[in-house]
Amino acid sequence: MLRGMLLLPGIVLLVVLDLYDAAPGEDIVETLPGLKNQPRFKHYSGYLNASGTKRLHYWFMESQNDPKSDPVVVWMNGGPGCSSMEGLITENGPFLVSPDGSKLHYNPYSWNMVANVLYLESPAGVGYSYSQDRNYTTNDDETSYNNHLALQSFFKKFPEYKKNEFYLTGESYSGFYLPCLAVRLMNDSNINLKGLAIGNGLSSLSMNDNSMMYFLHYHTVLGDDEWSMLQKYCCNCSKCEFSDPKDAKCRSLVRIAAQRIFTIGINEYDILSPCADGAPAMDENGEVIPSHFPSMLFRKHAFSHAWRKSGQMRNRLGLDSPCTNTSRMARFMNNPAVRKALHIEPGLPAWVDCSDDVHRNFVWQYEDMRAQHLSLLKTKKYRILLYNGDQDMMCNYLGDQWFVESLQQKLLKSYHPWYYEDKHEGRQIGGFVKYFTNLSFLTLKGAGHMSPKNKPQPAFYMITHFLKNQPF
Amino acid sequence: MLRGMLLLPGIVLLVVLDLYDAAPGEDIVETLPGLKNQPRFKHYSGYLNASGTKRLHYWFMESQNDPKSDPVVVWMNGGPGCSSMEGLITENGPFLVSPDGSKLHYNPYSWNMVANVLYLESPAGVGYSYSQDRNYTTNDDETSYNNHLALQSFFKKFPEYKKNEFYLTGESYSGFYLPCLAVRLMNDSNINLKGLAIGNGLSSLSMNDNSMMYFLHYHTVLGDDEWSMLQKYCCNCSKCEFSDPKDAKCRSLVRIAAQRIFTIGINEYDILSPCADGAPAMDENGEVIPSHFPSMLFRKHAFSHAWRKSGQMRNRLGLDSPCTNTSRMARFMNNPAVRKALHIEPGLPAWVDCSDDVHRNFVWQYEDMRAQHLSLLKTKKYRILLYNGDQDMMCNYLGDQWFVESLQQKLLKSYHPWYYEDKHEGRQIGGFVKYFTNLSFLTLKGAGHMSPKNKPQPAFYMITHFLKNQPF
Repeated sequence: MLRGMLLLPGIVLLVVLDLYDAAPGEDIVETLPGLKNQPRFKHYSGYLNASGTKRLHYWFMESQNDPKSDPVVVWMNGGPGCSSMEGLITENGPFLVSPDGSKLHYNPYSWNMVANVLYLESPAGVGYSYSQDRNYTTNDDETSYNNHLALQSFFKKFPEYKKNEFYLTGESYSGFYLPCLAVRLMNDSNINLKGLAIGNGLSSLSMNDNSMMYFLHYHTVLGDDEWSMLQKYCCNCSKCEFSDPKDAKCRSLVRIAAQRIFTIGINEYDILSPCADGAPAMDENGEVIPSHFPSMLFRKHAFSHAWRKSGQMRNRLGLDSPCTNTSRMARFMNNPAVRKALHIEPGLPAWVDCSDDVHRNFVWQYEDMRAQHLSLLKTKKYRILLYNGDQDMMCNYLGDQWFVESLQQKLLKSYHPWYYEDKHEGRQIGGFVKYFTNLSFLTLKGAGHMSPKNKPQPAFYMITHFLKNQPF
Repeated sequence: MLRGMLLLPGIVLLVVLDLYDAAPGEDIVETLPGLKNQPRFKHYSGYLNASGTKRLHYWFMESQNDPKSDPVVVWMNGGPGCSSMEGLITENGPFLVSPDGSKLHYNPYSWNMVANVLYLESPAGVGYSYSQDRNYTTNDDETSYNNHLALQSFFKKFPEYKKNEFYLTGESYSGFYLPCLAVRLMNDSNINLKGLAIGNGLSSLSMNDNSMMYFLHYHTVLGDDEWSMLQKYCCNCSKCEFSDPKDAKCRSLVRIAAQRIFTIGINEYDILSPCADGAPAMDENGEVIPSHFPSMLFRKHAFSHAWRKSGQMRNRLGLDSPCTNTSRMARFMNNPAVRKALHIEPGLPAWVDCSDDVHRNFVWQYEDMRAQHLSLLKTKKYRILLYNGDQDMMCNYLGDQWFVESLQQKLLKSYHPWYYEDKHEGRQIGGFVKYFTNLSFLTLKGAGHMSPKNKPQPAFYMITHFLKNQPF
């Protein structure tokens, strides 16, 4: 606190300090390793209380603009089981980690340029969050309950932010986390919830499965012959059912296609990007050895259950694609000096990007988030943005577009391109957007699953306009 | 010639020189401006004779490997009206031009690493090719006739290459040029034609139009609502007709979609790349002012005729997209020292990437190249590769895939990924491929219309394997 006070001359400002600088001195990050120069804005890392012995790690970045009046924005990565530190140090945070994990550099398109951003590791067991009882079995409802408690704990630590506008943002499985949490916040008058922005969110298991097969055909992965066969056995004229087909031949075709697709060396999170480890080798028959199957896909197919249970997977989780590499994050987050600077509780195990324990034991309670979104929209109080990097295959844009349509809200403006002023290239298409009352669907052209990482400039344009309630 | 002889000690090698170095001394490029070091391989630039007063400019790169035994490969860009110098100095040539047009740097993935490559500017009126009578009205058959004469003229200049294997390669409208030329070469026993490799070729006007609408939907440009309407009025269950629809409502929907798509600021040649000039501005109603329509598209629609004739187009040609920038090429090619080094005939007008004169006056004689490909395949003597950068919208991969299927050749291996060893990233998917007898369809993942420029390493892998008749 002393450091803050010394900067403020005079008694009047000390009063302001009282009101707006009630932040917890013990959580302030004084010196963050890896940075050449410490930031001008304040940031805090520590723990928030949830139920029982659960303690959720957070890292909070005050706005670089005007902390007092800028909104408070939560960012959460998905999984379930993955850490929001990924978002912070590789996507939209103020410091991005170097390839070797030793250094940080400033991100000119950090979302804390326009907002106070709270990165939350949730549920307990993810990253540096933990529970003393080490019980990491949880589900959607319990997770949102604990996230709500953690937010209450946050506003206890930072009461000066209670009046600010409050937004939930995140990506991937946050498509389940955030609507569940938002529904709880509807009844909490102490939190000034204004809206949600979800990137490449999982919104409906079946729509995600079904659209993925289209997406794969649309991006040359499923050739015309295979696509024709799938259409013949899985579709009628207007509709295809790949997620839970009744036809045995269709089930078999989906199994063959899905298993191959997840083993040939495509970067599932960004279909045009290289496979970070190199594509898997083939056996003597020229076939790729199956090693991986993402656990949120095709859950109604016996093959995906069998695969998950079989222990065949080289990759423990089935969460990280074999084509992604999370080592630079782990190197940074596990640096003892970083742990110390971030006030990580001693004795905790090493940070990993995605927790096997949490993921395996997570109980999926919902098929989709329709009811949650409709509850929110019915109040006419909240703005919802579903945005998708259009090169992601895991939670592809088409499934979320279908999901948004399925909410049947009143159309305000039909699908059209949106533009941003690129620093180097001039006026450019950022993607496409469609507006409904309090609801928008938006694509980020050329971005993958982690769209603020892939396309920082248009993603920053997008979030700024969303927070300010300006058209894109 | 002296320079060559001085390097060769003794009489035996002088005999070899007689046989293998009959190349025209007057065409040799001694010193090429823009290069820090002159190349170790020999290259020649000059003129080839075609009919009447037509003189076609060529630039011939001897192989950096083994000129004597390596194949001779022709490269031709499309248009009609565009110069093959584009291919040379920005795609697959040994020297690539710098952004300011003043310098050249060596291309480690130049196709002359494995072949003797002849870049031909055709027809007369393109680039530095000309006709003394200045009549630049021509058509497909006359063009292929003149290309054949030019090749005969080439082998007269370079008789030592007559026995080498001979291949035709090129992109875009070369999808028409090369099959027409190849059919003529079938009856010329002096030219050892072995095959054709065509990149993002125009193979069928209707398939290109029809597939383009799918492609645009597949890449988020046409939203679901518009796509549903198009399907309703232009399609039955299994087939859509956008190119020449009978239904008036469908014609109107296609017109609206096509006109918008070509004006909103998409890079038509590489859909995820930025628009080089910046996207066009909007008028006060928020509408983009139409300025451009590519002339090979939707030729059966009244709107495209009207547009071409109206002089509305800001861009003279309707060939170059408003999002491409050809100035660095023009700067290099028009450098007086470059013209001199390349033996460009004095008094010729400035080099432009694509000739308005040639394009406007070109008479399109064919609807598609089916008959030509089938003639070639019937002999069982020639290998044909149609390859497509999968991000190109002008001649999209789907149309060429359909075209290849329409040839109904015997399937040898179904659609599957192909791999290459990336210098930095290890084993990677280069794209997908399907083999028929003497015919392959192949995609280049992430590449646009000018795929050797966008993805030099996999494109080089592809051409090497094609020339050596090895599986991809």
